[in-house]
Amino acid sequence: MPNWLLPENIADVLPSEARKIEELRRVLLDKFRSYGYELVMPPMLEYLESLLTGAGQDMDLKIFKLVDQLSGRTMGVRADMTTQVARIDAHLLNRRSVTRLCYAGSVLHTRPSGLHATREPLQIGVEIYGHAGLEADAEIQELLLASLKLAGISRVRLDLCHVGVLRAIIADDENAKNCDAELFCLLESKDTPGLRKLTSDFLPQTREALLALPALYGDASVIERARDALPKLPEVTRALDELDTLVRQVGNADVTVDLADLRGYHYHSGVMFGAYVPGLPNAVARGGRYDHVGEEFGRARPATGFSLDLRELARLLPVAERKRAVMAPWGTEPALRQKINELRESGEVVIQALPGHEHEQDEFDCDRAVVFNNGNWILQSLG
Amino acid sequence: MPNWLLPENIADVLPSEARKIEELRRVLLDKFRSYGYELVMPPMLEYLESLLTGAGQDMDLKIFKLVDQLSGRTMGVRADMTTQVARIDAHLLNRRSVTRLCYAGSVLHTRPSGLHATREPLQIGVEIYGHAGLEADAEIQELLLASLKLAGISRVRLDLCHVGVLRAIIADDENAKNCDAELFCLLESKDTPGLRKLTSDFLPQTREALLALPALYGDASVIERARDALPKLPEVTRALDELDTLVRQVGNADVTVDLADLRGYHYHSGVMFGAYVPGLPNAVARGGRYDHVGEEFGRARPATGFSLDLRELARLLPVAERKRAVMAPWGTEPALRQKINELRESGEVVIQALPGHEHEQDEFDCDRAVVFNNGNWILQSLG
Repeated sequence: MPNWLLPENIADVLPSEARKIEELRRVLLDKFRSYGYELVMPPMLEYLESLLTGAGQDMDLKIFKLVDQLSGRTMGVRADMTTQVARIDAHLLNRRSVTRLCYAGSVLHTRPSGLHATREPLQIGVEIYGHAGLEADAEIQELLLASLKLAGISRVRLDLCHVGVLRAIIADDENAKNCDAELFCLLESKDTPGLRKLTSDFLPQTREALLALPALYGDASVIERARDALPKLPEVTRALDELDTLVRQVGNADVTVDLADLRGYHYHSGVMFGAYVPGLPNAVARGGRYDHVGEEFGRARPATGFSLDLRELARLLPVAERKRAVMAPWGTEPALRQKINELRESGEVVIQALPGHEHEQDEFDCDRAVVFNNGNWILQSLG
Repeated sequence: MPNWLLPENIADVLPSEARKIEELRRVLLDKFRSYGYELVMPPMLEYLESLLTGAGQDMDLKIFKLVDQLSGRTMGVRADMTTQVARIDAHLLNRRSVTRLCYAGSVLHTRPSGLHATREPLQIGVEIYGHAGLEADAEIQELLLASLKLAGISRVRLDLCHVGVLRAIIADDENAKNCDAELFCLLESKDTPGLRKLTSDFLPQTREALLALPALYGDASVIERARDALPKLPEVTRALDELDTLVRQVGNADVTVDLADLRGYHYHSGVMFGAYVPGLPNAVARGGRYDHVGEEFGRARPATGFSLDLRELARLLPVAERKRAVMAPWGTEPALRQKINELRESGEVVIQALPGHEHEQDEFDCDRAVVFNNGNWILQSLG
């Protein structure tokens, strides 16, 4: 096998794509900063226990394991950065005030999440810690929509759900609580026959409510339909009220509600959401409440945030235009170097042709050249 | 052991440091681009054979190994990006013209290179492929000095050496060629007694030249001293001529020459250099010629470049000033939201105080606030 082949679902990013990703990375981080989110950079490697703490427990099969030669302990390569950022909030910063953090970096997965999915997503995201109220959820959703708009994606649908609904429905039914993982799978795939079978020995009101959930999706009117179809438990009502408040605050974005879409249900604690764009079946960004995320680090703080894969987002955008550049001859003459430096400092790309390579076609579109004219180095258009 | 402790020589980067690193990353990548260097993003993971190809062979002990669940083959986490970028030039881009590439990303090392060294350097660098002449070396050195200056480091010493000198000295002496790795170690540590012992059965002229090397360091006059002290072999003369040309082109930077500093001698092929700054014993950046770097990927192209660790560079710079910000009340009123959006789009950081957290001390220095005054939302200074 030739030594330049890459493993499956692993790829190089070549210049035109790399530039799109880099530009996107900058505008998003700048946007996050304008809302007061501070950048942190957690490490690629940690002890496995830390990575599997709290919200990380779903990640075990996705994490590459390594032996630390210094301690003999097992380390993991991060497969997700949210647990890491929660650790930073809980222990390193240890602030009592509301803390807004953002991050961007590669994560690695042992297996791709789909046939064409990369095993090296470039995860970028934000988290807000220390406020349990819906205002934090609203800010996160507003920031997500603003970020996608800034990236050039205008048609976005925000899909909301709330883990409180399912939690309240099964709270008083031991049989249901004992098979919550199975329930979650059946609900996610809206498998009503399977659900009918699994719930046969549940309490009648639990069963009825669970069988109603798969049909409770659609526009904002779902919330009113759910009030009729679901039992009037205080926690159900509270969850539906929260969804109602958020739907009203999202503004003019396209909003849907899906009460059975409970991906990540184990570690979420309130409103969850996904952002969908035309032509992509999977959410381009996901987020929600993880109020218990810091608990196992010894300091539970309310938390909500979102994250997305910059590489996937970049693929949705048009190819960047070929960048214009200036060609300059090779030379060490001070006047020439000064002219080149001035142009570069003014923002131009200036490529000095190395001797013998003057007529090579470069990837840059050199539409102007630095030429010697009447004793001066000037910029000349190449027609 | 608490689950929030990190492995040794692995660290989180907190907000003030992260901002310095991010700003440095941007100004350096922009500088590289202004010279026509295009960004590429090689993957964190590759098959081990690819990472160990050519210049990568020294890296074996530094590379974390993993089993690929999809192929059963051994993969490595990159410990250096130069081999990866050479692979991209050789196979993916496959251009015949001069190609300028740059890169920035985390690399991981199984063991730290020193007591306080990180195992996760943030490597940033440039490579120029396809030109064997000294002009490429000169451009790389100029770009390195310009980059360090832009980063705020003005006092830099560039230390040059040339592997051609040692290669020419030992070329006709089988005994010397057979122990080149040992020779290299003794020369690097300027261990003259050890050198005297090792060279006892070498040819007399080889021995004399090798024993002269450790003393051949200092300012540019070393080149003339070397012409007297070393045998007048054509390859020695050519190497010294090349050093002489480059020393003259570096301009007004502080330049030294050290003919025994041959780190990375195996895979380098011409001029090598390190950049030193006051207070740091190790080079802050290293680079040089690797003309054979693409050979084992089936396409040898002349190559030269440099790389440095952005985290180490950032540590040399003063702490960033606390960023000024604007405090705004929470609220969904359109006029308030519009005012906040305008401020954010003009480059301000605007932090909306979440209900109940209005009087928390934030990390940002909020010296202004958005307040409601005479029917309008205005910006007011907080004295």
